[in-house]
Amino acid sequence: MPTIRVVLVEPKNEGNIGAVARAMKNFGVAELVLVNPCTIGAEARKRAMRAVDVLDAARTVADLERALKDTDLVVGTSGIDTESEKRFARISVTPWDFATRVAKTQRRVALLFGREDFGLLDRELLRCDLFVTIPASPDYPILNLSHAVTILLYELLAAGVDRRGKREASGLEKEKLHDAFRSLLAATDYPAHKRARTQVMFRRMIGRALPSKWEFHALMGVIRRATKRIQRLERKE
Amino acid sequence: MPTIRVVLVEPKNEGNIGAVARAMKNFGVAELVLVNPCTIGAEARKRAMRAVDVLDAARTVADLERALKDTDLVVGTSGIDTESEKRFARISVTPWDFATRVAKTQRRVALLFGREDFGLLDRELLRCDLFVTIPASPDYPILNLSHAVTILLYELLAAGVDRRGKREASGLEKEKLHDAFRSLLAATDYPAHKRARTQVMFRRMIGRALPSKWEFHALMGVIRRATKRIQRLERKE
Repeated sequence: MPTIRVVLVEPKNEGNIGAVARAMKNFGVAELVLVNPCTIGAEARKRAMRAVDVLDAARTVADLERALKDTDLVVGTSGIDTESEKRFARISVTPWDFATRVAKTQRRVALLFGREDFGLLDRELLRCDLFVTIPASPDYPILNLSHAVTILLYELLAAGVDRRGKREASGLEKEKLHDAFRSLLAATDYPAHKRARTQVMFRRMIGRALPSKWEFHALMGVIRRATKRIQRLERKE
Repeated sequence: MPTIRVVLVEPKNEGNIGAVARAMKNFGVAELVLVNPCTIGAEARKRAMRAVDVLDAARTVADLERALKDTDLVVGTSGIDTESEKRFARISVTPWDFATRVAKTQRRVALLFGREDFGLLDRELLRCDLFVTIPASPDYPILNLSHAVTILLYELLAAGVDRRGKREASGLEKEKLHDAFRSLLAATDYPAHKRARTQVMFRRMIGRALPSKWEFHALMGVIRRATKRIQRLERKE
């Protein structure tokens, strides 16, 4: 995983800075650098909630170059997509493209977020190696600053998570479940000509449900128990 | 696409309600229902920014059942994953699983978000058809309310976007580019024994760069221009 530094360029609202600190802690990012920010007071601390430590450790610098010192990759962000692809400084990638690319590096990455009202200036964008645009409604594409930070950090964390549920039952487990279901149909003397399609129905249903290991074991337990019960009772007859 | 209703259960902070309205408008969702909320005043309107219309159109109801009326699927959310899978009401899916499943339906979907401090109560969770947990740092997994809404609505919108960049140059276009590059190498009398590997280098570089259509045309223009210039000059010799 890369080392992430969140850089806010001239933030004007201290509440936003607090909310950004909270989002950073939520997604395991600690380094916050503020370029020429507004005054940070009680509102920022309140919004930071249990991430006041991130806020307190934030560094304030006077210009962008100081904020980017010792980073290997500079990523800019915007809530607004470019109208013209020819404004090359604003050609962008999606947050998931960004996350897929960046999650693999071991580099030090600066994530740049612009002013609440004007975003990043063109000369600041030219400093970016990668420019990310968050897809949004054309009616109102400008996200709140801390919401934009949240989406990018969330995508980075998600890119590191195995996107197949870890707890999902394995194929082998599922086959055992289908065997157990087949035995249950047999034990219940289920009409022979309906068995095949009922088994398919069950398979499809399980397929859509994507049972967890626990759900799989629970369901398996019920089916086996029913089957054994029938078999035992039949032996007694 | 489904019709989405955002339901906030007993929100305590009006600023959060305003920020939720803004996030909704950012992602093209209009219907907001508030179950037994705090008073909504100036702070909510300020945080809503250009989504005051969403806030003004919000319905307030006294209990959850009224909020869920006329919906087909109820989705609950939490910032905290369950410790035990056996607390079955809290077995959850990821935001991307949720989005992939829900984006395809034409149904009316209620997205439930709990209180800032206690989230959703167990009895409220039992009413949910699907339960989504946002992956977060174990150190501080509790997201701000509007941040949680932002992530779920963002995932829904992203699920509807073609995840391959629409502007990306097509395979055919890329082959034309490689032909043009090959012609350029020939025109420049590039050493024959180096041509193959240089072409591979170029192909790999373009592969990593994923050029947009515009970038492709721009690059193609440069290469063809150089090639033609050389050819014309050679004819004059």
